[in-house]
Amino acid sequence: MLRLGMVGGGPGAFIGGVHRMAARLDGRWTLTAGAFSSDPDTSKAFGTSLGLAPERAYGDWTGMARAEAARADGIDAVAVVTPNHLHAPISLAFLAAGIPVICDKPLTTDLTSARALGDQVAQSRLPFILTHNYSGYPMVREARALMAAGRLGALRVVQVEYAQDWLARELPGNRQAEWRGDPDRAGPGGALGDIATHAFHLVRFVTGARVASLSADLATLVAGRRVDDNVHVQMRFEGGARGQLWASQVAVGAANGLRLRIYGEDASLEWSQEEPDLLRFTPLGEPPRILRRGGPGLSSDATAATRLPAGHPEGYLEGFAQIYADAAELIGAHQQGRAPNPLAQLAPGIADGIEGVAFISAVVESHGADGAWTRISP
Amino acid sequence: MLRLGMVGGGPGAFIGGVHRMAARLDGRWTLTAGAFSSDPDTSKAFGTSLGLAPERAYGDWTGMARAEAARADGIDAVAVVTPNHLHAPISLAFLAAGIPVICDKPLTTDLTSARALGDQVAQSRLPFILTHNYSGYPMVREARALMAAGRLGALRVVQVEYAQDWLARELPGNRQAEWRGDPDRAGPGGALGDIATHAFHLVRFVTGARVASLSADLATLVAGRRVDDNVHVQMRFEGGARGQLWASQVAVGAANGLRLRIYGEDASLEWSQEEPDLLRFTPLGEPPRILRRGGPGLSSDATAATRLPAGHPEGYLEGFAQIYADAAELIGAHQQGRAPNPLAQLAPGIADGIEGVAFISAVVESHGADGAWTRISP
Amino acid sequence: MLRLGMVGGGPGAFIGGVHRMAARLDGRWTLTAGAFSSDPDTSKAFGTSLGLAPERAYGDWTGMARAEAARADGIDAVAVVTPNHLHAPISLAFLAAGIPVICDKPLTTDLTSARALGDQVAQSRLPFILTHNYSGYPMVREARALMAAGRLGALRVVQVEYAQDWLARELPGNRQAEWRGDPDRAGPGGALGDIATHAFHLVRFVTGARVASLSADLATLVAGRRVDDNVHVQMRFEGGARGQLWASQVAVGAANGLRLRIYGEDASLEWSQEEPDLLRFTPLGEPPRILRRGGPGLSSDATAATRLPAGHPEGYLEGFAQIYADAAELIGAHQQGRAPNPLAQLAPGIADGIEGVAFISAVVESHGADGAWTRISP
Amino acid sequence: MLRLGMVGGGPGAFIGGVHRMAARLDGRWTLTAGAFSSDPDTSKAFGTSLGLAPERAYGDWTGMARAEAARADGIDAVAVVTPNHLHAPISLAFLAAGIPVICDKPLTTDLTSARALGDQVAQSRLPFILTHNYSGYPMVREARALMAAGRLGALRVVQVEYAQDWLARELPGNRQAEWRGDPDRAGPGGALGDIATHAFHLVRFVTGARVASLSADLATLVAGRRVDDNVHVQMRFEGGARGQLWASQVAVGAANGLRLRIYGEDASLEWSQEEPDLLRFTPLGEPPRILRRGGPGLSSDATAATRLPAGHPEGYLEGFAQIYADAAELIGAHQQGRAPNPLAQLAPGIADGIEGVAFISAVVESHGADGAWTRISP
Repeated sequence: MLRLGMVGGGPGAFIGGVHRMAARLDGRWTLTAGAFSSDPDTSKAFGTSLGLAPERAYGDWTGMARAEAARADGIDAVAVVTPNHLHAPISLAFLAAGIPVICDKPLTTDLTSARALGDQVAQSRLPFILTHNYSGYPMVREARALMAAGRLGALRVVQVEYAQDWLARELPGNRQAEWRGDPDRAGPGGALGDIATHAFHLVRFVTGARVASLSADLATLVAGRRVDDNVHVQMRFEGGARGQLWASQVAVGAANGLRLRIYGEDASLEWSQEEPDLLRFTPLGEPPRILRRGGPGLSSDATAATRLPAGHPEGYLEGFAQIYADAAELIGAHQQGRAPNPLAQLAPGIADGIEGVAFISAVVESHGADGAWTRISP
Repeated sequence: MLRLGMVGGGPGAFIGGVHRMAARLDGRWTLTAGAFSSDPDTSKAFGTSLGLAPERAYGDWTGMARAEAARADGIDAVAVVTPNHLHAPISLAFLAAGIPVICDKPLTTDLTSARALGDQVAQSRLPFILTHNYSGYPMVREARALMAAGRLGALRVVQVEYAQDWLARELPGNRQAEWRGDPDRAGPGGALGDIATHAFHLVRFVTGARVASLSADLATLVAGRRVDDNVHVQMRFEGGARGQLWASQVAVGAANGLRLRIYGEDASLEWSQEEPDLLRFTPLGEPPRILRRGGPGLSSDATAATRLPAGHPEGYLEGFAQIYADAAELIGAHQQGRAPNPLAQLAPGIADGIEGVAFISAVVESHGADGAWTRISP
Repeated sequence: MLRLGMVGGGPGAFIGGVHRMAARLDGRWTLTAGAFSSDPDTSKAFGTSLGLAPERAYGDWTGMARAEAARADGIDAVAVVTPNHLHAPISLAFLAAGIPVICDKPLTTDLTSARALGDQVAQSRLPFILTHNYSGYPMVREARALMAAGRLGALRVVQVEYAQDWLARELPGNRQAEWRGDPDRAGPGGALGDIATHAFHLVRFVTGARVASLSADLATLVAGRRVDDNVHVQMRFEGGARGQLWASQVAVGAANGLRLRIYGEDASLEWSQEEPDLLRFTPLGEPPRILRRGGPGLSSDATAATRLPAGHPEGYLEGFAQIYADAAELIGAHQQGRAPNPLAQLAPGIADGIEGVAFISAVVESHGADGAWTRISP
Repeated sequence: MLRLGMVGGGPGAFIGGVHRMAARLDGRWTLTAGAFSSDPDTSKAFGTSLGLAPERAYGDWTGMARAEAARADGIDAVAVVTPNHLHAPISLAFLAAGIPVICDKPLTTDLTSARALGDQVAQSRLPFILTHNYSGYPMVREARALMAAGRLGALRVVQVEYAQDWLARELPGNRQAEWRGDPDRAGPGGALGDIATHAFHLVRFVTGARVASLSADLATLVAGRRVDDNVHVQMRFEGGARGQLWASQVAVGAANGLRLRIYGEDASLEWSQEEPDLLRFTPLGEPPRILRRGGPGLSSDATAATRLPAGHPEGYLEGFAQIYADAAELIGAHQQGRAPNPLAQLAPGIADGIEGVAFISAVVESHGADGAWTRISP
């Protein structure tokens, strides 16, 4: 059992609780230390309420990094689940203390800090995992495996979307909405940083194809908002394939509608996050086949990320848990000086994080240049 | 019973047979005359095989226009179902002969001829119907009625797509594919003219909102093809709403995937042509409701376009037949010098046709200008 | 073009209009004569409103049978679309006049009259078609072809259901509801005769398997109703397979929910009337495949019953039209003294009608005997 | 954090791992002791592999009950996850030792032992939870709440089914299949005990209605099998409603297809385990509404059982975890001598277990009497 520390994720935070449940599910991590809030008293009280030993419910993360690094039984990794602008300084501090990092996305709020963090990760040689959690779903890994095995032939068209409606109105007083709507804490993107980055990573993860350039149109459809809430991007891939990306937080009726469709020369794939156990695979000239997690005809990539038999639905927490399972394997292997299970290397890392920030930058730049085709430069 | 003439739609043509079935379904039209092929013998033989009187199975459409105009029992309208480049000359000839026209889309292959045809229609004061048939579906009319009644609030986002896969490979020898892939007969667009125009009209029909400008990316993904087979467009509407349009004929696994999603300030709508009887309507903060043709809670617009009770599926032919039913009402009213039933005026007409060609032009222009935002100028 | 006569189907009747549209769709039938109402004036007025020649808009069906039989251009077939209790006398009269019959279901209201009608059909050697219209759907024919080709292996389990909700309340004044709720006109079954017979025929049509015995539970769930409105049947097939049948007209939220699932030793099939273009086929140990009308991988049985390409939805009228197309072929072949296209013999006939009435009788008998297993004796 | 012991669930067992993950998810239970196998060495080795202290990885459950009862830090409850025939003796032993029980279903293999266990539970006054886990799903609880609030009106029809295909062939050597196919260990039912009991409980849980009598048809469709693999039951409820239940383990293509449909006088409900986050609710005369876990319009019953926002799918483990969360509340309240949160009392208990065994008995009896209507006598 590995020891997990956490920075951020205090009372009322959504993603902190998700990380804790996901880490717990497979029995490979135990939450051992944390600095959960910028208010020291709140942080300590919340930590003890989670069952931490009082001395490991820290008042601040700088103290936590120092103290944990000094303990023989110090944490094996820290989960960074704060607002975006703190990802970089916290990650740097823990890496400097020799502690591997599991960081939420987007990596940082600007490309300079993302690259600097990348340098630090490289120098530290420590594992760094970025929780683009949707890549933990078994059927997303199946999609990637089918693509990698050439079953789709040459890539032609990608349609990806991520639609939500929770910001269809201003939400005064909502903590989640507040920092996400503040460019100083969230970075230059609203829906762009929060969800379009997930969609972009999903495309990159499944297809492996690089986006050569993009043309973007950002919109703020709710008056008074300081960041975008609707993102439209057209993409040209290396090799000539084309794509569209849509991300919106004002799409009334959408819950968490991340959906990917990939069309190759020989076959297509379709996956929707709200029915994550299914993957539609259609070879040209044949009827569509509905692949199901745990069912027949799957690769070992999917099977290895599966906990339950077919028809016993796995969901968001299981997909997220897979990233933690991969992190456990990567960090365990690092500790033991051995090569990790290659499948654990499917977990997103620092390079994905830098590319995500470069994607945000390119979208902002293209939008500012009236949709001019713009390169992504990680 | 009105008398219908037809130009085009001979042996092996897809859309001619559809027009004939659609015209027949409601018992308001009887096919009476036609010139079905550019080869006179083929044309005559095909006409008599359809049960036409021999003297009304014409060898060419110029003769047909002349002869029918001269008969006391001449046709009440002509259906023009030829390749695109002939829409204008044939329509002009029949209008000049005083015969109303039911024309397939796109209206013409260039904006000049479209505008000229528009002038001729205006001058003739004759009914002119354009078979953007998808606007005949009851639930598309329900969507329009909901939008028009303000149930969605201000428009924010439109996502429309039309995906097929029948051109995922070159189809040597396929008549349908051949002329559609020849710019001289199809016009400058491939998927653009053939299906993106349907998607564009659907957006216009349902929302009533004007597209202020668009940014387009055309692609030819099958080597050797002379026209586009994949269309990506981003749209800015008057009033600030944003949209994406995707049309493809290489989307492996897609059959006839025309799908529209509209997001307003207060509610959203979702409709898919492959399940045309259903319409998903979601008010903000409420569960989605599945409206069904023939079922409870519908407007008279939808009800008036309905033939069967709920659960007895209506399909493509019924939607197409509605355009013919509307045409019968418009032409009957014209003959009788009375105002038509206002619902019949939902049938697309010459203005829709000109705007469709202007859309094609704008897309081609934007694509040629590297995606520059371009106005649609009908 | 064949000449169709019609008995029943006057103002306000649902199924008469369906028969007329279905007969018209493929251009093989023209409505030529009819007796549409028990009131002679209504009948004549309605007939002329449909465009019939006045002398062929009859005041009563006995006169119509006599007069049409006497004409050189008499009708080629009569469609009997009256309430159930009149099916037998009208069919007998037209058969006696040498006129083929297209009769609605159930064949008659009791087994004695059904068998007598069967004898008369046999003796007359005239075509007799029963409009169990759901067997006209292409994908139902595909299901039958897959079963017949042994693709499912030995039959194991059948689950069939037909759920509606239009009788969830008493409907005073509704003509459709009125006669269906009157045992003198509808026969002993309510939902049993009206829709359970369709479900039963569908099972027989697709599987070809005989029901050895059944155990039934009828219920009248709306107080004051004189016939059943909910039907539960368990079935044992010859060969050992088992089945359940449910039919209900009080299933709130159901529109026209006829659904069939068949499980064999090696594969299964699933079809739903409300999405008639799709058929789910799952071989054991393989992912489900979604077969689509007009799409790849279908038999000639399905293809021959198809009017439109994949993704252009066909519906209830097209399926119904297929029965009329088959009838045209059967009657045309009879007139010409040739063997009909074998596929046309898929149209249900007199034997299906007798078996359907025997099914009703067996259900009523089993229910009366507290669910005792009861044989079907056609 | 409560301490959980486990009996059964050793290497290769499916449900043991599920219980452990479910118990872990919410952070309220920690696995502390166990006797996992009938082989003492296997049991101990497996326990230590799970991280148990060696002295609490027991060789047998009798020793475990004794030792844990004697410890100050003994387990707070034992999870009994053995084959069915051991549920009774193990539960009795732990209850006798003063330890609450969380037992898998069916409760026992015969009604006598079920009632005896019931007496012991009553006498001990200890919490006893039965893991009919599907009642832990939030939308199942929403269905129950809607029914209880009278939103459906009087109950009319229930259609429930539970279809799987994993036993479509004999599975020699499969541990799960082996004991389930042995009447000495599984009890008299195959699919009947394993899955039909879940379906029956689901009906009882959601509707609250009692089944007055049932008529059953069991079948063994795979030759050589000693227990049923297909179950057909017709039900008459107190108050006059009717129902059908189907359970099968040979339904090729079915994964874990538990599906419930309830029709009341005023509305209907539809829920499918494979999409557990959704619940279809249709009031008479209104369009269906798709209720979604975490979404708008739900009761506190559903909300209280929810971990994630709408669109972040929860699945089987989360539903199962809810039973463990309820158990934690019930046992915690018992320890503290306080009344538990009433919602925790939704967890199934001993009465549900006895009724489930009575259901099995009644089905077997009815089947043996050729489908005679038979009462359930718990």
